[in-house]
Amino acid sequence: MAEHRLANGRTRIDFATEPSRYRHWRLAVNGDVATLMMDVDEKAGLFEGYDLKLNSYDLGVDIELADAYERIRFEHPGVSAVVLRSAKPRVFCAGANIRMLAGASHTHKVNFCKFTNETRNAIEDASAASGLRTICVINGTAAGGGYELALAADHIILVDDGTSAVSLPELPLLAVLPGTGGLTRLTDKRKVRRDRADVFCTTEEGVKGARAVEWRLVDEATPNSQLETAAAARVREFAEHRRVKSAGADGSPRGIALTSLERTITADRRDYRYVAVAFDRAARLATITLRGPERPPVSVDGMIAQGAAFWPLRLARELDDAILDIRFNETQVAAIVFKSEGDADAVLDYDRFLDAHLPHWLTHAIRSKWRRVLKRIDLTSRSLVALIEPGSCFAGTLAEIVFACDRAYMLIGRRDGDNRRPATLALADINFCDGGPVMSNGLGRLHSRFLGEPAAHEKARAAIGAPLDATAAAALGLVTFALDDIDWEDEIRLFLEERASFSPDALTGMEANLRFGGPETMETKIFARLSAWQNWIFQRPNATGDAGALGRYGSGRKPQFDTSRA
Amino acid sequence: MAEHRLANGRTRIDFATEPSRYRHWRLAVNGDVATLMMDVDEKAGLFEGYDLKLNSYDLGVDIELADAYERIRFEHPGVSAVVLRSAKPRVFCAGANIRMLAGASHTHKVNFCKFTNETRNAIEDASAASGLRTICVINGTAAGGGYELALAADHIILVDDGTSAVSLPELPLLAVLPGTGGLTRLTDKRKVRRDRADVFCTTEEGVKGARAVEWRLVDEATPNSQLETAAAARVREFAEHRRVKSAGADGSPRGIALTSLERTITADRRDYRYVAVAFDRAARLATITLRGPERPPVSVDGMIAQGAAFWPLRLARELDDAILDIRFNETQVAAIVFKSEGDADAVLDYDRFLDAHLPHWLTHAIRSKWRRVLKRIDLTSRSLVALIEPGSCFAGTLAEIVFACDRAYMLIGRRDGDNRRPATLALADINFCDGGPVMSNGLGRLHSRFLGEPAAHEKARAAIGAPLDATAAAALGLVTFALDDIDWEDEIRLFLEERASFSPDALTGMEANLRFGGPETMETKIFARLSAWQNWIFQRPNATGDAGALGRYGSGRKPQFDTSRA
Repeated sequence: MAEHRLANGRTRIDFATEPSRYRHWRLAVNGDVATLMMDVDEKAGLFEGYDLKLNSYDLGVDIELADAYERIRFEHPGVSAVVLRSAKPRVFCAGANIRMLAGASHTHKVNFCKFTNETRNAIEDASAASGLRTICVINGTAAGGGYELALAADHIILVDDGTSAVSLPELPLLAVLPGTGGLTRLTDKRKVRRDRADVFCTTEEGVKGARAVEWRLVDEATPNSQLETAAAARVREFAEHRRVKSAGADGSPRGIALTSLERTITADRRDYRYVAVAFDRAARLATITLRGPERPPVSVDGMIAQGAAFWPLRLARELDDAILDIRFNETQVAAIVFKSEGDADAVLDYDRFLDAHLPHWLTHAIRSKWRRVLKRIDLTSRSLVALIEPGSCFAGTLAEIVFACDRAYMLIGRRDGDNRRPATLALADINFCDGGPVMSNGLGRLHSRFLGEPAAHEKARAAIGAPLDATAAAALGLVTFALDDIDWEDEIRLFLEERASFSPDALTGMEANLRFGGPETMETKIFARLSAWQNWIFQRPNATGDAGALGRYGSGRKPQFDTSRA
Repeated sequence: MAEHRLANGRTRIDFATEPSRYRHWRLAVNGDVATLMMDVDEKAGLFEGYDLKLNSYDLGVDIELADAYERIRFEHPGVSAVVLRSAKPRVFCAGANIRMLAGASHTHKVNFCKFTNETRNAIEDASAASGLRTICVINGTAAGGGYELALAADHIILVDDGTSAVSLPELPLLAVLPGTGGLTRLTDKRKVRRDRADVFCTTEEGVKGARAVEWRLVDEATPNSQLETAAAARVREFAEHRRVKSAGADGSPRGIALTSLERTITADRRDYRYVAVAFDRAARLATITLRGPERPPVSVDGMIAQGAAFWPLRLARELDDAILDIRFNETQVAAIVFKSEGDADAVLDYDRFLDAHLPHWLTHAIRSKWRRVLKRIDLTSRSLVALIEPGSCFAGTLAEIVFACDRAYMLIGRRDGDNRRPATLALADINFCDGGPVMSNGLGRLHSRFLGEPAAHEKARAAIGAPLDATAAAALGLVTFALDDIDWEDEIRLFLEERASFSPDALTGMEANLRFGGPETMETKIFARLSAWQNWIFQRPNATGDAGALGRYGSGRKPQFDTSRA
């Protein structure tokens, strides 16, 4: 099957949106409750070649969902519960659109699944980190990705009307997995007994009513007549819970507006205010340069007045957008090179400012945003390298980017004709503290880096605040190589050329292993155990071949399977 | 490339061997030290089409290695250290044979990797469970799978002669991963810093001497002249360690002989003493029937006198052989049906006997063997179903097989004309205790089953020893469905037909997810994170296509890569 083209003549996928431009969701905020109504516009698919029937979704639908949760957290910080429901009668959501999947490239399928997984993780992150609970009301069919979306909620209410059901029919219908976290959330979040999970995942029509509750698939099954009462009761319960938790905080604060990102997009560049991306297409490189800030405001009021222009928030949003752009629109890029420029002391001042005001909802929300953006970087299947040169400002939060990279190179001393002081790297509390930007394995990046050498971890901690030159940073194990000016150009060039010469698939697999040493969590299981198996299945003719289940779905012809078991 | 055929006209792979038949290893036992010398016979490959040069290996080599460790544990229980080394000059082991991989079917590649991983895990299991330490002496090149074999050891000594090196050149040379545990043992066992691991895994020539020690890749680097002294020192150290640990035990006990399994192999059956396998090829089913024992011996001496004929040991070895036979030789089998017949009380008597004599080396070794066999079942990519019928004896250790299955069906009451008492299921301490046969995720199967319902776990514990009929077993959550005679035949038939109709790949992926809820360990990471990515890569044209790296290796032609990053 020929791959689908983007709809409306577009040539790139844009991740920036806002509620007034939503085609598939309606966001309504009423006091401390937000209602997020799924009402997918059949004709507004991201690609040509399919209609988004029955609230089925493609990446475009998910981009809006991710945006909605970001806006609730920043623009409506007083909201304590989100009610997630469908505006369509008798259907909650039919899951990922099958024709979209059948006509998508392997690369798009993989990245689509990754993004939708990140969105569902963000829903759970809002609950775990900020007490923003999601109640999912299922008024009909929640099939496949539709039920997987529900699984991201804190509480699932299913209408008990004799027909409404939850189901994961991917395996029997499509010969693929419920890969948007479905299998992992069954076993690890809802802790469904494994044999019941087996029955559930092989039963096309799913499970209804009381059995769905008994099998732990939903939290409540309620007659249609009591649905609104049941939902309202849960909303009140969660609101109470949060009010207790946030006692002493800001009451019901006003949010800040997530204004549009200002971007200039040209053939080989993306220029934001604090982020610049330059593509070297011959070398298959993207260089992302992060710009440091001026001094921070003196007070919380100053931060709020700046709103979305506040440096840590603006940089995080710009960086997130740049990474997603590369993932989806620049699939030939082999490696992302991170550089920075600016005043490292000012970066550390911002970290101190955020630390000092951390009980405040906005500082908390910004730190949470950074955690998600950094996780997005960890999970980006491109080789990641940091180049630390004179004039750079990798310190505190920005140093986390160095630790997210597969390798970091640091220049010793000055270059001829460059009067800037030699490169330094600086650590801050944020690189160590428990509330810092943990990886999806639950550990901080330095903790994970030094799993075998706890003494090295402590030695690094003792260096907090000090400007570390290349030799010191290398001695502390914070960078991979410290090189002088004589070697720098050749070493970096050879490394990047070598990287571009390797098999992209093997690099993806290697990096997915080496980046995640140590413990696994539900989140890492979703991206490794579940997604890696799904990606394998996406390569198998039984799913995606000419006679495979995805292409033959709805054609009236049965798929032909190679029956040998691997 | 055409797939290789088995050498010497063989039509099936046989897992039974013994030291006198080894072609690739020499096992010598001297007091409490075993030396296992790798000396691969180039011309004795399992398949046609390649020579096993430079101590490279195929499945045949690994079958002997696995056998050698089994024999050390049972036949030489007084051995406290294994010295693993090469008989070839200047080469330890070149890893999995590349031409073998290039000419193997996807199914064989996947199963080959799984078996070699299980063998390395068994080496670590011998250390962790029985204090049998392995010292690996690397006298030259340990490349790819060669270094991965070393990684399974407790202690790695590398000759420091300016040329000997350890390396994982899979990615740069072959566009695949170091998939025999290599990546996972780097990050999780040896805890190599991730950026160094990145450099190491992309450097064809590997790392030598002092740097290999500094990077935690080996434990010692020693000049050739001091190699034997260094190895002997470690052997003594480990022997001391074990002597302290096993003080009060049997001193230096005599082992038992692992006599040949007696099997009758016909077209559609495999008949052992306690295991019978029947194939229904039209239905793509293998039915494994386990036979229960008579009463156990009255004393340890009686057990030793029985030796390999002792029921729990013989059954475990037979079952292991049957599972491996299905994995490799019967790739069309969609589901394995487990049945049992015999006296459940006698099975429980055996469990009590083993419990009562557990400090004894042989009871300990048998329980360890069962742990490994049950893990092998968990990791078998076929649908697993237990049918519990009148006359069956699923109790204690045998009940673990029920809990390893994806589903269990139990018959309520009697069948017409069958006078045997209705089916029962019985639990024993072994199903709960910490020293029981844990899964590779570190949990017992019942613990894992009831992660969401600890109260159900305790309720099951309270039923230890009671013969549970179908209704009771279903109420306790121990079986999936209790069915009466009227429904039984149709339900089972429909289920098995349905299973055979599904995509084998999707089932493999689903079962690999649903069977391993809860925590992950290094072992589960190897079989999920690492192997699932490797299997994906094995499907990608960059590795296995006509212009891929595996096929072009050694041809003088460079592979052609699709450079888009998924």
